[in-house]
Amino acid sequence: METMEQILFKAQTLIEALPYIQKFNSKKVVVKYGGSAMLDTDLQKNVIKDVVLLKLVGMQPIIVHGGGKEITKWLGLLGHESKFIEGLRVTDEQTMEIAEMVLGKVNKNLVQMVEGLGMKAVGISGKDGSTLKVKRKTIHGQDIGFVGNIKEVNVDLINTLIDNDFIPVIAPIGLDNDYQSYNINADDAACAVATAIGAEKLVFLTDMEGVYANPEDETSLLSVLTLEKADMLIESGYVGGGMLPKLKNCVDAVRNGVNRVHILDGRIPHCLLLEFFTDRGIGTAIIDKNRAFEHESIQ
Amino acid sequence: METMEQILFKAQTLIEALPYIQKFNSKKVVVKYGGSAMLDTDLQKNVIKDVVLLKLVGMQPIIVHGGGKEITKWLGLLGHESKFIEGLRVTDEQTMEIAEMVLGKVNKNLVQMVEGLGMKAVGISGKDGSTLKVKRKTIHGQDIGFVGNIKEVNVDLINTLIDNDFIPVIAPIGLDNDYQSYNINADDAACAVATAIGAEKLVFLTDMEGVYANPEDETSLLSVLTLEKADMLIESGYVGGGMLPKLKNCVDAVRNGVNRVHILDGRIPHCLLLEFFTDRGIGTAIIDKNRAFEHESIQ
Amino acid sequence: METMEQILFKAQTLIEALPYIQKFNSKKVVVKYGGSAMLDTDLQKNVIKDVVLLKLVGMQPIIVHGGGKEITKWLGLLGHESKFIEGLRVTDEQTMEIAEMVLGKVNKNLVQMVEGLGMKAVGISGKDGSTLKVKRKTIHGQDIGFVGNIKEVNVDLINTLIDNDFIPVIAPIGLDNDYQSYNINADDAACAVATAIGAEKLVFLTDMEGVYANPEDETSLLSVLTLEKADMLIESGYVGGGMLPKLKNCVDAVRNGVNRVHILDGRIPHCLLLEFFTDRGIGTAIIDKNRAFEHESIQ
Amino acid sequence: METMEQILFKAQTLIEALPYIQKFNSKKVVVKYGGSAMLDTDLQKNVIKDVVLLKLVGMQPIIVHGGGKEITKWLGLLGHESKFIEGLRVTDEQTMEIAEMVLGKVNKNLVQMVEGLGMKAVGISGKDGSTLKVKRKTIHGQDIGFVGNIKEVNVDLINTLIDNDFIPVIAPIGLDNDYQSYNINADDAACAVATAIGAEKLVFLTDMEGVYANPEDETSLLSVLTLEKADMLIESGYVGGGMLPKLKNCVDAVRNGVNRVHILDGRIPHCLLLEFFTDRGIGTAIIDKNRAFEHESIQ
Amino acid sequence: METMEQILFKAQTLIEALPYIQKFNSKKVVVKYGGSAMLDTDLQKNVIKDVVLLKLVGMQPIIVHGGGKEITKWLGLLGHESKFIEGLRVTDEQTMEIAEMVLGKVNKNLVQMVEGLGMKAVGISGKDGSTLKVKRKTIHGQDIGFVGNIKEVNVDLINTLIDNDFIPVIAPIGLDNDYQSYNINADDAACAVATAIGAEKLVFLTDMEGVYANPEDETSLLSVLTLEKADMLIESGYVGGGMLPKLKNCVDAVRNGVNRVHILDGRIPHCLLLEFFTDRGIGTAIIDKNRAFEHESIQ
Amino acid sequence: METMEQILFKAQTLIEALPYIQKFNSKKVVVKYGGSAMLDTDLQKNVIKDVVLLKLVGMQPIIVHGGGKEITKWLGLLGHESKFIEGLRVTDEQTMEIAEMVLGKVNKNLVQMVEGLGMKAVGISGKDGSTLKVKRKTIHGQDIGFVGNIKEVNVDLINTLIDNDFIPVIAPIGLDNDYQSYNINADDAACAVATAIGAEKLVFLTDMEGVYANPEDETSLLSVLTLEKADMLIESGYVGGGMLPKLKNCVDAVRNGVNRVHILDGRIPHCLLLEFFTDRGIGTAIIDKNRAFEHESIQ
Repeated sequence: METMEQILFKAQTLIEALPYIQKFNSKKVVVKYGGSAMLDTDLQKNVIKDVVLLKLVGMQPIIVHGGGKEITKWLGLLGHESKFIEGLRVTDEQTMEIAEMVLGKVNKNLVQMVEGLGMKAVGISGKDGSTLKVKRKTIHGQDIGFVGNIKEVNVDLINTLIDNDFIPVIAPIGLDNDYQSYNINADDAACAVATAIGAEKLVFLTDMEGVYANPEDETSLLSVLTLEKADMLIESGYVGGGMLPKLKNCVDAVRNGVNRVHILDGRIPHCLLLEFFTDRGIGTAIIDKNRAFEHESIQ
Repeated sequence: METMEQILFKAQTLIEALPYIQKFNSKKVVVKYGGSAMLDTDLQKNVIKDVVLLKLVGMQPIIVHGGGKEITKWLGLLGHESKFIEGLRVTDEQTMEIAEMVLGKVNKNLVQMVEGLGMKAVGISGKDGSTLKVKRKTIHGQDIGFVGNIKEVNVDLINTLIDNDFIPVIAPIGLDNDYQSYNINADDAACAVATAIGAEKLVFLTDMEGVYANPEDETSLLSVLTLEKADMLIESGYVGGGMLPKLKNCVDAVRNGVNRVHILDGRIPHCLLLEFFTDRGIGTAIIDKNRAFEHESIQ
Repeated sequence: METMEQILFKAQTLIEALPYIQKFNSKKVVVKYGGSAMLDTDLQKNVIKDVVLLKLVGMQPIIVHGGGKEITKWLGLLGHESKFIEGLRVTDEQTMEIAEMVLGKVNKNLVQMVEGLGMKAVGISGKDGSTLKVKRKTIHGQDIGFVGNIKEVNVDLINTLIDNDFIPVIAPIGLDNDYQSYNINADDAACAVATAIGAEKLVFLTDMEGVYANPEDETSLLSVLTLEKADMLIESGYVGGGMLPKLKNCVDAVRNGVNRVHILDGRIPHCLLLEFFTDRGIGTAIIDKNRAFEHESIQ
Repeated sequence: METMEQILFKAQTLIEALPYIQKFNSKKVVVKYGGSAMLDTDLQKNVIKDVVLLKLVGMQPIIVHGGGKEITKWLGLLGHESKFIEGLRVTDEQTMEIAEMVLGKVNKNLVQMVEGLGMKAVGISGKDGSTLKVKRKTIHGQDIGFVGNIKEVNVDLINTLIDNDFIPVIAPIGLDNDYQSYNINADDAACAVATAIGAEKLVFLTDMEGVYANPEDETSLLSVLTLEKADMLIESGYVGGGMLPKLKNCVDAVRNGVNRVHILDGRIPHCLLLEFFTDRGIGTAIIDKNRAFEHESIQ
Repeated sequence: METMEQILFKAQTLIEALPYIQKFNSKKVVVKYGGSAMLDTDLQKNVIKDVVLLKLVGMQPIIVHGGGKEITKWLGLLGHESKFIEGLRVTDEQTMEIAEMVLGKVNKNLVQMVEGLGMKAVGISGKDGSTLKVKRKTIHGQDIGFVGNIKEVNVDLINTLIDNDFIPVIAPIGLDNDYQSYNINADDAACAVATAIGAEKLVFLTDMEGVYANPEDETSLLSVLTLEKADMLIESGYVGGGMLPKLKNCVDAVRNGVNRVHILDGRIPHCLLLEFFTDRGIGTAIIDKNRAFEHESIQ
Repeated sequence: METMEQILFKAQTLIEALPYIQKFNSKKVVVKYGGSAMLDTDLQKNVIKDVVLLKLVGMQPIIVHGGGKEITKWLGLLGHESKFIEGLRVTDEQTMEIAEMVLGKVNKNLVQMVEGLGMKAVGISGKDGSTLKVKRKTIHGQDIGFVGNIKEVNVDLINTLIDNDFIPVIAPIGLDNDYQSYNINADDAACAVATAIGAEKLVFLTDMEGVYANPEDETSLLSVLTLEKADMLIESGYVGGGMLPKLKNCVDAVRNGVNRVHILDGRIPHCLLLEFFTDRGIGTAIIDKNRAFEHESIQ
């Protein structure tokens, strides 16, 4: 039995949430899902449940996933060694074939979880409908095999699925102009997709609380980061590790029209709901100062 | 700053509320608003704010209001005495003229409050679009003047307003077949409108907590009342005062297709939100046992 | 039994009328209805019948009404004195409350008459749908209370009603930016509405035959008045009384896109039909010389 | 300059006409045009002008024409004799070829007149779109050549033209199942077309005032003729000459769903307008007693 | 029984044809049909069958026909002599009347053939829907009667017919501004119609194999003729006879937006199919060099 | 350079093909693709090219594929043995995981080939959109692991893809009511999909010429097989090997509404085109005698 205090707190939570629910109605949101957040079964269930609830109240979520650790595991089972240069997997023909098989498995597994919650999902790779067109990537002039930079996103298939109430689940594989398969970095894929479909939000579910003004200082977590401030952080050299390319991606996405990019701590249960439907939000939001303020006015 | 416990309580409240928000999307709900709940300025603001929030998340609220106390006041100012027979105002031509003027004032005042919160409202009486057609009422064969029983509801105007995103605010006045004006009981009007437009819900905002199994026993509040049980209560003679005709109206509305009728305590702040978007609900819900259970399954 | 001469005259009348009926099909026409033309019951019936016939043959009439004499009467009954400065009612809070009640009564009474003829009408004030937004008016810097100048017309509600075959009947009350009620001059309201909805015609039903070149000379009635000629008349000082602001309104309306503004003698039975559907017309038409001629060519 | 009496008579004419104009809006009316009414140039202009005005106020007129006298003339010029059996032209191959040429000329001539009045017309025969499918006719077992009974009306082409605001002008020629050309009686064609397209009205423009109860008695003109009464007249043997088959056609058309069939005196100027838009009507109307009364209620 | 070689040849023919069928889907093509190709019954059947097949696979054919030899014949039968100046028929009033009758006959005859193959056709002249508006033509200042130059094509009727799946068959007759009938050269009419409706192709079925670089040299048949080359040929004086004005028409049509104009040998069975659906084509195609190449790329 | 004989043969081929192209326009056709026809690279290219051409001329092809030999190969690479009972793979959890990965690879490989020819394809399994819902299969009461019988086909996703011009490529995997993955026989999947979407045709590309009346007699190939005859063959015991279950599937599909089921020899180049667009057809067609004849009439 709830106390009157709890009842009033519920009413306040609803009054706080309802305008956001209205505001985000039929807005597109890309959720990049990967890393260790994919390995914990309970967290995985929470994330998929949140995505289903977003869909339930009228948003249009799109999932872009990775799967590096699974790929490494299966390559090992088949007797192949995994090699990386600057964080990118060196991808020969056999590696590509196996990587595509493994990402396909991860992809359909996520579909299966969404379907199990009564919502419709469709698992695609960037090859379907030539959704992701790429160009071979090199690192300092060095070839690393079938690793691609995205050159073009054909949004027809994604929009068709969204318009018909399917949640697209996208594996980061693409085709070059000769219709050869390529591996793509999942963060890059999420960013390109969000930009191309005009997403309201792009969310990275990570293993960190967000972006720190000073990584050494736990109290320096930034809840809002303007483009100017983000540029400064990038140049400062303070930001490092996996966060640097991610932050660059965030800045690009906002510059290209995504309204807000969020770096959330995927370890907090239901972090997506808390970020979207409460005033305070959690994690770090990267915004364009001018645009963001005018959009927030109805709150 | 919120505690983690509060944050998790918020997440739970959202997970609890989201399916209801989805479930009630674009559903019509008639809110009967009158009595003393109209006299307290703060309560009035809360009620109108809740109605606006219902609209904001996609429901289609319709307000039906009364105004008996205001009518009595203005009749007095103009030197007319108010007479009642069995709770119904004896209405001669002059009384009718003044009653219509006063209800018009109350009506546009509610419109003004909704508009002030940024939502669109339109104040109509049952004369507009011949929405409410009536027949002269008698009590035990005795004429009591221009008091009408509703014979027909023309839903075109109400639906036109709803379809174009206006909140209809309805004063309980109607026309007979000779296009003469008549006064109508506001509870009757709310009930007839809810039935005619196929409302999902009809809500009576009252000065009581709900319906009691035993009016003498404060702990006997009924949170759910099936039609069978309601019939028994009505026959038992236990239910009395203003509650008896209201309960009969509720039973009629459910029998005629309204999914749920709620008797809520208008004195609880945001009682509409708490009833609609939490599992527990508040006040008393009158339901058809069979129908209700199948509809509730996604909760 | 009709003579052959009468039959041929009928045929000629039809041949004369049919092209106008076609020409005005689905065109919007604003009828300003007020003054003494509202007091004679028979004239009132004739006017409403004409409006209903205009609707019947496919035009889209909108009624804007006044009610000054009724307001004065009820203020008197409630012990309030009516004060005017330069023809505008000084409007304190109580006067505003009573004026709104009385205009509401007049409004619904017109609705009732239209409904009685089998056509659908909806009575609104400028508060519904925030249709008329105003700013407080002053006269030579002197405040006269809740009297407003129209700053903005939101046409959504009017167009919604028209598109769904309801005849809008509009009372001249508006809201300022703080959502406070204001009294508006009915001629101003008619003019603003006609301009905002792009009316083909705006008609003032008055107690005069039309505009005279020389008010002293009964034979100088002008059947057509170009903007240039109207400007000259206004400057000349010849036009006086209630006609001067009305004429200024007419000129504004034509300048802002209304095709023709008519000043008709509301005392001639069925003056609206005769003006609209016969070659000769009656009363005075204010036109833009260039525009008018090209539009008349199919006659 | 019109007198006030004339002005009021005009107003009355309009009040009388407007409900009919509304009532017949977008209704289809088939006008059978032939015989001597086609030979007088002034009458011809009046008829075409009326048809254009019907179209102008929203009706959907279709013209079905004959051309017997022209065919006889051109057959003569080319050295062919005209032979008739029971009023039907004996039609060998050469006669058919010439009849088709002549009817084509008459057809396009009517189109030309409509176009000259600024309305769009399209001249077709029953061969276009296989609109009229026929079976070879015999008279008492005797073959009379290419003369056909209508077996089927394909309404697609007629409806396509109407829906796109063209007035169809139809020559009475058809195709049999072997796609051979056939001559058709124009009254039959008008009747079949009116029935097939669900016309509101079918009008025969004739050289007579209408149907007489007693052909000998000039005062016995029938303004309304019920199906029962028409059956009696047909059986009585009183009706003779060209009127008998015409009357049978009228009765069939009403029995098959045409609301009213009119036999009008094509020699009265603007008889179509007078019949359609005045209370009194002219000529004889053949009606189904039951149906007709319910349809007339708004008059 | 087919050999395997024949089967493979069939497969190749289909692989060759399918992209053209797709490419021309719902494209408009004007077929000018006249001259001696109209006199051979078997050729006539082949041409009409091809047109019906074009329609069957989704193209939108329009036939424009002539009929000079038939007109001359009937003028003779009626005792009128045919006079020509520079290939144009001197057309007095009687000649015009007879020419219109004869073209009407030819027109409905083609309709009849199309209908006989189960497709829907409608025969119109330029008078229907005022499709062809003309101005009186003179030759070196000399009047030659009712012979018109096309000044305007109203495409509404043609497009209405096409959109409703009828094949328009057009006789070359038009109206001037006084709605007088005029004779038009059929090649001119085909060219004007093709340009006005934005045809993909305009085809002239002639008695020649195509255009020769050197008319004396049978081996100099040109399969493609660019605008530049065509201009040179016209200026060279090499091209003569009926081909010169035809070639000028072709050049105009291409310059005005028709994608390809074809001069085909109507004596080759099924020349339309072979031209449209095989890589090689037959006859001469007049093209705009730049435009043509980009359009052909999917072949 | 083609001979005139070849040109005429081309014309005949086109005249033969065009009615089929029209007849099959926007018809759905399911192509079951598997077995050894998938192993020859050239044949694979021909099949995919044919499918793309079918799409190009307006048909709506759907590919359902198998992949048994590839699964066996990868199971071997990962050290798993393949076991079969009555031709069905015994499928434990690991086998299922690997089978799904391999079918995913085959699936996206076919997508890639279609995309390479400029058409859009989307590779799905029966898990996407819960397209294929299954129940665990047993053989004579013996469990064989994750092998499913199709219980329900949700056609929403397939229809969404088709309606948006994507070619669906379907891997035979499904979900049971607990959302567990299952392996499905590809022939069964093709048959269930064809029935559920109301396909005009279902085509099995096999390694045989078709069905023989007597398998021992090469000259007994049946080009048409009625349901009655097929039932007799099945009961006779003559048909054996892989053909028996395939033939049963064919019969079921025709009984459930598929118009024609074809068993084609996938080794004949362009067998799909030759079957669809020539009178003779190739392979064996299974038809419902009554239905088939009425549908074939326009040929």
